[in-house]
Amino acid sequence: MQNERTERILSALQKSGISQMLVTDPMSIYYMTGIYIQPFERFFGYYITAEGENVLFLNNLFTIPDGIDIRQVWFSDTDPVTDILVKYIDKSRVLGIDKTMAARFLLPLMQNKAAAGFQLTSLAVDMTRAVKDEEEKALMRRASQINDAAMARFKGLIHEGVTELEVESHMLQIYKDLGSDGYSFPPIVSFGANAADPHHEPDNTMLKDGDCVLFDVGCLVGGYCSDMTRTFYFRSVSDEAQSIYELTKKANESAEAMIHPGVRLCDIDKTARDIISEKGYGPNFNHRLGHFIGLGEHEYGDVSSAFDWPVQPGMIFSIEPGIYLPGNTGVRIEDLVMVTDDGIERLNNYSKELQIIE
Amino acid sequence: MQNERTERILSALQKSGISQMLVTDPMSIYYMTGIYIQPFERFFGYYITAEGENVLFLNNLFTIPDGIDIRQVWFSDTDPVTDILVKYIDKSRVLGIDKTMAARFLLPLMQNKAAAGFQLTSLAVDMTRAVKDEEEKALMRRASQINDAAMARFKGLIHEGVTELEVESHMLQIYKDLGSDGYSFPPIVSFGANAADPHHEPDNTMLKDGDCVLFDVGCLVGGYCSDMTRTFYFRSVSDEAQSIYELTKKANESAEAMIHPGVRLCDIDKTARDIISEKGYGPNFNHRLGHFIGLGEHEYGDVSSAFDWPVQPGMIFSIEPGIYLPGNTGVRIEDLVMVTDDGIERLNNYSKELQIIE
Repeated sequence: MQNERTERILSALQKSGISQMLVTDPMSIYYMTGIYIQPFERFFGYYITAEGENVLFLNNLFTIPDGIDIRQVWFSDTDPVTDILVKYIDKSRVLGIDKTMAARFLLPLMQNKAAAGFQLTSLAVDMTRAVKDEEEKALMRRASQINDAAMARFKGLIHEGVTELEVESHMLQIYKDLGSDGYSFPPIVSFGANAADPHHEPDNTMLKDGDCVLFDVGCLVGGYCSDMTRTFYFRSVSDEAQSIYELTKKANESAEAMIHPGVRLCDIDKTARDIISEKGYGPNFNHRLGHFIGLGEHEYGDVSSAFDWPVQPGMIFSIEPGIYLPGNTGVRIEDLVMVTDDGIERLNNYSKELQIIE
Repeated sequence: MQNERTERILSALQKSGISQMLVTDPMSIYYMTGIYIQPFERFFGYYITAEGENVLFLNNLFTIPDGIDIRQVWFSDTDPVTDILVKYIDKSRVLGIDKTMAARFLLPLMQNKAAAGFQLTSLAVDMTRAVKDEEEKALMRRASQINDAAMARFKGLIHEGVTELEVESHMLQIYKDLGSDGYSFPPIVSFGANAADPHHEPDNTMLKDGDCVLFDVGCLVGGYCSDMTRTFYFRSVSDEAQSIYELTKKANESAEAMIHPGVRLCDIDKTARDIISEKGYGPNFNHRLGHFIGLGEHEYGDVSSAFDWPVQPGMIFSIEPGIYLPGNTGVRIEDLVMVTDDGIERLNNYSKELQIIE
């Protein structure tokens, strides 16, 4: 018996003629089994077959909940993992391989001729995970609702003389008080010129009048991630900062407004990018417009020129245009959106109007 | 021209008859080149050859410092990475492969017959990285000195009614004030029964009289990690908690005392484990005694029954026995130690005597 998620993956696999796969991405295994393990350097795999003879391979050092109704093969650090896997994989058929499977496990399987061939089939998993089911949608909505509420509290931490690190020091507690399980990624808090680096980490920079205050933050609910960016200004905003803020907001809103089933990811990216480029800031928007998200903060799939998929109902991704002026300031406005039958459900509803904090 | 670290790796490679390798672990590339990039799902690789024709492969979205004297090949998200790599790899020779290389890059290279064979050669890199050079030793010492100083301040955060999260909220600032670059891993702060889970994350648990207070913490200095655990008690300590504390301390000290060049990692583990098992707590010490550390918080190599290497001068690893009583309490005492010509230099010098915080 397969559950519905595993059925969807196997059905995608069979379209490319593959009937067995070794899944090794811990998030994908969690997606199918409800078992989450961070294996670090140890082997953790889930072997799935069209016949439903699934096997979970686990190191004795892992712990899993009681009552799991999946065939399990346990081994220790001193057992030969390859020899164990070879006993279960059907040598006469091609084996589908996950994109993140590490060479230290893959090369020995190939040397042992564990299968008739080895084919990259992670798209079957990734495209399935890209379209969320109802249970996932509920968790994604909840994580983003908490993120909206948290943003209001984070704004309240801003006052004269505060440093980025002092602001950061309250954030985990706020997320947990609001009912989330913690950060989905280390928060970005950037004052003034620090916001020109999209990946700035909080430091001892002290807030000055006229600084922008950028929060790129997210939390976890039931394993699912939120991710939102808002940019505020402290006491005043320069004409140029205001102008790039409004331009970024227009890019964000125009991209979100055009999304409906069938629109290509690359065209959504182009819409936002063209708006920014027309005003001469193209080189200052130096990253993709968005990324897929779910169990992972970054899941397979980008809103960028490199992805020409048409979007489908149930897909959830970020829309996050930004303009960065090195040494000066930066702005980014990011929401998560879910594709519906006729447009989007925006998961973030915290205001995008320019706000000056007094 | 190779630098000394790359020379050491190539010399180890050549002992197994390999003269070209594609390194993809970002830490290993940093180790050889000084360039650190977190590539996420994008390709980042360093091709090294016995002839010194090294090439760094970079996505246009990465940024590197100016003035890097290494041949660079840049590509974009829409370029075919495999086709580019094939132009540089020598088809007539076996290619050494890094243990973490992802299947999505390795399988296409194999399909394109980019080399005469593909052999796992990460040990050449990992065994080189396991033995620190003088520059690395200096950074590791400094990171652990800061960790010692931070532990004294963390102890000062403990008072009646405090929660784990409130303690955590001050820690990043303390690490940065002391001159480090931040956490080497998210800190563990565990009160009472929470300490029975070696990987507990700080939550809203409030401190109670008689609780143990376990800190497993580390910071970064120049890319290098520290990692230390100390366990305190609040106002009182039960007889059993005191007894497992002293047993854990004895296991820690006995293991550290026996280390000198030539002693095997598995025998160090056994010494500590036997001390704990003799008193009946063997099942309550359910993890390896230690792990290697450097640029990564966990580097290749364990102090466990699975590793029979004799230790060498310059190796740095943790010694961290623990005893966990589920639902009750836990204790772990961890230092980083560096093997010297005749023993060890202990990198952590914060007291290991049992301390009761009033």
